[in-house]
Amino acid sequence: MTKTVAIGRVTGGRLRAAKDAATTEEPLEIRVVTRGKGGRQAHSVAVTMRTPGHDAELAAGFLLTEGIIGGGGAIEEVTEALPGDAKLPVLRMRSEPLPFEDDNVIHVCLKAGVPFDPRLLTRNFYMTSSCGVCGKASLDALRVRGVQPIAGKGPIVGASVISGLGERLVKAQSVFRRTGGLHAAALFDAKGRLLALREDVGRHNAMDKLIGSYVLKGTALPEGSIAVLSGRASWELMQKALAARIAMVVAVGAPSSLAIELAREFKMTLVGFARGESFNIYAGAERIAVKV
Amino acid sequence: MTKTVAIGRVTGGRLRAAKDAATTEEPLEIRVVTRGKGGRQAHSVAVTMRTPGHDAELAAGFLLTEGIIGGGGAIEEVTEALPGDAKLPVLRMRSEPLPFEDDNVIHVCLKAGVPFDPRLLTRNFYMTSSCGVCGKASLDALRVRGVQPIAGKGPIVGASVISGLGERLVKAQSVFRRTGGLHAAALFDAKGRLLALREDVGRHNAMDKLIGSYVLKGTALPEGSIAVLSGRASWELMQKALAARIAMVVAVGAPSSLAIELAREFKMTLVGFARGESFNIYAGAERIAVKV
Repeated sequence: MTKTVAIGRVTGGRLRAAKDAATTEEPLEIRVVTRGKGGRQAHSVAVTMRTPGHDAELAAGFLLTEGIIGGGGAIEEVTEALPGDAKLPVLRMRSEPLPFEDDNVIHVCLKAGVPFDPRLLTRNFYMTSSCGVCGKASLDALRVRGVQPIAGKGPIVGASVISGLGERLVKAQSVFRRTGGLHAAALFDAKGRLLALREDVGRHNAMDKLIGSYVLKGTALPEGSIAVLSGRASWELMQKALAARIAMVVAVGAPSSLAIELAREFKMTLVGFARGESFNIYAGAERIAVKV
Repeated sequence: MTKTVAIGRVTGGRLRAAKDAATTEEPLEIRVVTRGKGGRQAHSVAVTMRTPGHDAELAAGFLLTEGIIGGGGAIEEVTEALPGDAKLPVLRMRSEPLPFEDDNVIHVCLKAGVPFDPRLLTRNFYMTSSCGVCGKASLDALRVRGVQPIAGKGPIVGASVISGLGERLVKAQSVFRRTGGLHAAALFDAKGRLLALREDVGRHNAMDKLIGSYVLKGTALPEGSIAVLSGRASWELMQKALAARIAMVVAVGAPSSLAIELAREFKMTLVGFARGESFNIYAGAERIAVKV
């Protein structure tokens, strides 16, 4: 459930090489296989960013909690490989196949006669706290879309500036919050001055509000500005920062494995566990001034 | 951004009435309005569970970070009420209208000539950490689906049992985790014994895995079992617990306003901030034995 990654650990402004265990985050495609008069059919019903392990449980639980099946009695078997016919066409809501690894697909085969209405899944299209991709995911999908890496280094940020960002975020946030239930996303300049802060019950919403404030003003984000997150850095938050061409993301919490991969692939700087005097550099250390 | 709710505050097993500020969580429907040869058209592109405020920024940021627009120059105006023609038909991916309040819809009107391809939105259908509804939401949608409240009280749980659950969850979780990046969902019986625990980078996935483990075994969840969450209680996690007919949810973190409303409407017990000797009861206090 974790991937070991090489990181830079900064304490008191001094950098040393270290290892860190990052939570694995990978897409899983859930397919429902039905048997009808016309033979078997596979329906791609959802893709979720998950930590691998217990995938059969995840698929079965998803179908129950989303109201697709009434209980375990509806299921004949759950399998990674599609049983019997490897060439069974898969009905998708997407027009293009996703480049998933074989072990990132799971098939839930329903018993004959169990009703299944794929329209139930397309009828309402919701996102909730910390969703927000609902449109595209995985590094490959970004590459297909033609998203370019961040070019150039931009301003170099001092380690002492980064050390203070987490605390400044919490301080700025505490003016607004009374509930303990809000995520924050803030923009700081390369000298550590607060430019803007937005809060929301959903992390992706806080990030969209922050970026949207500049979209509505019609101005580009200031060169070298830093996005600071009150919680963890997931794939989707990095993808949103990249879309807004933010080169540096600093998270108070942990980054996921896919967030790290995205940052490295697209030449972003990713800092995690920014608490007190210490922080970890997961990607793009060249934008941070440290003692070695 | 908050709603004040009446709660029961339990400290050292003793209950007193109190007030708490819960983070507001409400659905927002984002619509894109285009102008073409055939006149104007409104497209419902997403519904997100958000904290009200800065809705125009949220919509503009979402369209940018999801690759729908390239920048603020594409936008003519952002407005709650649909300008000009209140009867403009709305193209939806849903087959039924949602019973949203007027202030829970926002329209982003694109400038004439700005390209917009609604298929970009339906092509890939993703969920990420803590998404998982992607199908149905809001209390009304649950009512329409015919979901029934939890009937009966079930076993009464002692306050001392509930006080210990958060700590027991963390202890059980620490065996597995090394990253600080995993959410956990666990099932305990009414006496506080751990039955099952699942972890994932996504909160909704941890919950689906937990419930799915019983779906695959083909056994019902034990009567009176308690779902314990390592983080916050959002709408979607309560909706998943309800689908699995779990009467009691205990969260280490804060509940959202909509999580509280769902619990009250469907006769569930919802406990938040379960830390140390204290916890808050947001709904269904009749299932908890306390001194008064």
